[in-house]
Amino acid sequence: MNALPLCFNVKMKGLIKMTNIVICGANGHMGRVIADVISGREDCKVIAGIDKFTTAYADFPIVASAGELTEKPDVIIDFSHPSTLDELLNYCLSNGTALVIGSTGYNEEQTAKIKKAAEQIPLFFTFNMSLGINLLADLAKRATKILGDQFDIEIVEKHHNQKLDAPSGTAIMLANAINEELDNRCSYTYDRHSVRAKRTKNEIGMHSIRGGTIVGEHEIIFAGRDEVVSLKHEAHSKSVFGVGAVNAAVFLSGKPAGLYAMGDMLKEA
Amino acid sequence: MNALPLCFNVKMKGLIKMTNIVICGANGHMGRVIADVISGREDCKVIAGIDKFTTAYADFPIVASAGELTEKPDVIIDFSHPSTLDELLNYCLSNGTALVIGSTGYNEEQTAKIKKAAEQIPLFFTFNMSLGINLLADLAKRATKILGDQFDIEIVEKHHNQKLDAPSGTAIMLANAINEELDNRCSYTYDRHSVRAKRTKNEIGMHSIRGGTIVGEHEIIFAGRDEVVSLKHEAHSKSVFGVGAVNAAVFLSGKPAGLYAMGDMLKEA
Amino acid sequence: MNALPLCFNVKMKGLIKMTNIVICGANGHMGRVIADVISGREDCKVIAGIDKFTTAYADFPIVASAGELTEKPDVIIDFSHPSTLDELLNYCLSNGTALVIGSTGYNEEQTAKIKKAAEQIPLFFTFNMSLGINLLADLAKRATKILGDQFDIEIVEKHHNQKLDAPSGTAIMLANAINEELDNRCSYTYDRHSVRAKRTKNEIGMHSIRGGTIVGEHEIIFAGRDEVVSLKHEAHSKSVFGVGAVNAAVFLSGKPAGLYAMGDMLKEA
Amino acid sequence: MNALPLCFNVKMKGLIKMTNIVICGANGHMGRVIADVISGREDCKVIAGIDKFTTAYADFPIVASAGELTEKPDVIIDFSHPSTLDELLNYCLSNGTALVIGSTGYNEEQTAKIKKAAEQIPLFFTFNMSLGINLLADLAKRATKILGDQFDIEIVEKHHNQKLDAPSGTAIMLANAINEELDNRCSYTYDRHSVRAKRTKNEIGMHSIRGGTIVGEHEIIFAGRDEVVSLKHEAHSKSVFGVGAVNAAVFLSGKPAGLYAMGDMLKEA
Repeated sequence: MNALPLCFNVKMKGLIKMTNIVICGANGHMGRVIADVISGREDCKVIAGIDKFTTAYADFPIVASAGELTEKPDVIIDFSHPSTLDELLNYCLSNGTALVIGSTGYNEEQTAKIKKAAEQIPLFFTFNMSLGINLLADLAKRATKILGDQFDIEIVEKHHNQKLDAPSGTAIMLANAINEELDNRCSYTYDRHSVRAKRTKNEIGMHSIRGGTIVGEHEIIFAGRDEVVSLKHEAHSKSVFGVGAVNAAVFLSGKPAGLYAMGDMLKEA
Repeated sequence: MNALPLCFNVKMKGLIKMTNIVICGANGHMGRVIADVISGREDCKVIAGIDKFTTAYADFPIVASAGELTEKPDVIIDFSHPSTLDELLNYCLSNGTALVIGSTGYNEEQTAKIKKAAEQIPLFFTFNMSLGINLLADLAKRATKILGDQFDIEIVEKHHNQKLDAPSGTAIMLANAINEELDNRCSYTYDRHSVRAKRTKNEIGMHSIRGGTIVGEHEIIFAGRDEVVSLKHEAHSKSVFGVGAVNAAVFLSGKPAGLYAMGDMLKEA
Repeated sequence: MNALPLCFNVKMKGLIKMTNIVICGANGHMGRVIADVISGREDCKVIAGIDKFTTAYADFPIVASAGELTEKPDVIIDFSHPSTLDELLNYCLSNGTALVIGSTGYNEEQTAKIKKAAEQIPLFFTFNMSLGINLLADLAKRATKILGDQFDIEIVEKHHNQKLDAPSGTAIMLANAINEELDNRCSYTYDRHSVRAKRTKNEIGMHSIRGGTIVGEHEIIFAGRDEVVSLKHEAHSKSVFGVGAVNAAVFLSGKPAGLYAMGDMLKEA
Repeated sequence: MNALPLCFNVKMKGLIKMTNIVICGANGHMGRVIADVISGREDCKVIAGIDKFTTAYADFPIVASAGELTEKPDVIIDFSHPSTLDELLNYCLSNGTALVIGSTGYNEEQTAKIKKAAEQIPLFFTFNMSLGINLLADLAKRATKILGDQFDIEIVEKHHNQKLDAPSGTAIMLANAINEELDNRCSYTYDRHSVRAKRTKNEIGMHSIRGGTIVGEHEIIFAGRDEVVSLKHEAHSKSVFGVGAVNAAVFLSGKPAGLYAMGDMLKEA
């Protein structure tokens, strides 16, 4: 039993609570990243993996399904595929196990199941698993509250040349978070080329740079009278999502049932 | 009478409170910047200036001392010189006038007088009058709270080639604000050239770039596992201090007696 | 007579050639910037100004027209208005005086006159008087030659919120310079929002950020496989055009007749 | 026989010369990166690998030593270890095979052997295999020539928190390249904290930022009067060295005997 709900970055003198984790999708790219992230920490450890390929490459066993787990974890981190959802929810609901969902692509029915399960178990489900990006959204809201009436706001995001959508989902999330602070009075401007007019106060400029293999950069620019504040996040590999997932797992361990997201983790910090 | 204490960026429908301002040091560089800033706003106006040179260049009169003012302002903004302090405090204490102090270079005795006066009048006194820099410090503390245990923190500041001190006072203020969040466990590293060692968790790197006529840039870098968050402020002219002072004046108008600083203005926003 | 054609940054041992300059438009904003730039240099000096307002604020006389000059300069720098063109060309052609034209807004007929005059006198006429921007164009062409086939190229420019046109004329100049190196195979992409497709090799992305009082920034990004090269120029005031004009004047002094531009100055350096 | 020496980025209409490559150290990290880089190109292919571990993971055979190669390559790219040098040079000298050396850590005797071999075969040997960094050095020299007398130069490099040395070898290479253009009149300043003085014209500031897992960034800042030019290179993975090595191999194919470096490749481009 977890008597002490601990924040992810709290280190109590002489007592570090250990969170036991099972990785679902352990032999996938993100699964291995997560195992690697955990191996560098003292407050959590992997006790088993779940994967359809059960070859064990690390020092923990891999089983084919949650039902075969021999030891109960505190938290399961899932980076497998929406198709494993039922099996995972069944296991977690039966055993009271916390669940961090990092897979994406769930349909509406599945999303409803996730929310329903969160009434009985602690469940972490978020748009973007990177701690940095979620902090960026938080700081951007704060900056907008202070500067929003007097500064112009523009968002620049950079991604690799194979990305199909523009702007990125994360850029839209950031713009929406900012716009909410401005009572949603702003529209988004994607192209100034076709108009010949001064910028208005009621727009947020959105710029999508595409090139090479850039993993992901998001910058929010607040430009005022002779001063500019800019907040920037650069992801250099997908492992940032792994770091975020492990933080979420340690945060979730011992929490009461409920649907949690990055915002909750930031609030508690 | 100011019945409604209004935040600097609140605009109530159909009712904008007008703050009447006197600028002390009106014919100096900063005095003219402040008059220019105010002329672009609807929530405040300059009713007079104080300056030893009493030539009026704008559409308000200039008098040689506070005692000669014919109309009582809501707030006096001072960007003159420490030598005018006594005269200003006398006037403000006698008339219950709010005071924004933007001059620098006060000795200990003068600083004590300022604090004493703040028991009777609303008085704004701050290290750095730029709104952006004070927001940067606030965001940096927030980011440190979230990322501090897992990210390395470095501060880079840029100034013109005539600046004598390094790092800048503002960079030290930012480092101290960050270090406070880390229980002051960090020392500051100014030179890695002389040592051959890995970076430790208990240092904040400080880098002073000097060149050309750069007015002032401060960037705080949080570098973690495959992700970097950076928060940056650029001042492109000294007028940013003017904008900050005017915001402070509007904020101060109608406040109860007390010593206020940028942090209070940010808190209320 | 100028026996020695000297490059703007050459300092010969024990011998610095002095260039005598007249500023046309001496009492305008740019005229005063130029006088200030020259006062900080040892290789040139202002011997007189021309301006319709003949009040002298500095230590050189101001006359109302070129015909009233009492001493012949080596070079005239013009930052007045297209309407002074005829008078200036007459004077320069009669006296063999070199001319740096920094005014803008000439019509076709005037442009033809300028080119014609350059057959008889050294005449400097350029799109953008900033040394830095012209260097940026030069470096961008060099980088494109090396990286162009394997890297994606995007241009980001930032200007104040009052600017009507987007992208800036300078951004278009940079894009054209780059495209020329790529045999003009690229089209310019201003908006990726409306399409859902990967970036192609035959486009240059153009992004116009507008906010606050930003004077002017231009950045060219070359994004390749796991590496990014970026070349950036920031102008912090219009005085950069003054510095460029003075460099042009010193460069022009003693040159044979001809039409010169920034590119020539860079080539000689 | 290679009748046509082709530059790495030349694509002749209807005729792309194919360069056959052998990778020495094929099963190491860099070896696999190089195979991956080559698989994405049309102007070269891997015909075999050399490695002490002879398991083939890709679609080309791996042999234990150069002597066992069954087909002669145009070029061998070596990213193995200095201990393989003798064997590689023997093979290349006997067969007239071009050699790109990407391994590091050679002693003086080995370096001498490399230079001697270059009298008989085309041999590529360079400090830093990244195309981008070598271009950066080239552009920095060009910018210094133009701006050096009037702008202040500072170098900022960023690397991960495990790096022992500061500044990086590459930063020193860049500083030396710049200083050479300034007749070596500059000293390098690593710490401004301990002095209270204005910056002089005869210094280059060097700043080493350390944090997280940053792979490598180098920026050169030229700060002048109200304008700043900055040139930056970011490496996001070690694969940039692989891209550089493959470019070098294609460049080298068909060249006459000689010692080549990145500078030669840039010159020809």
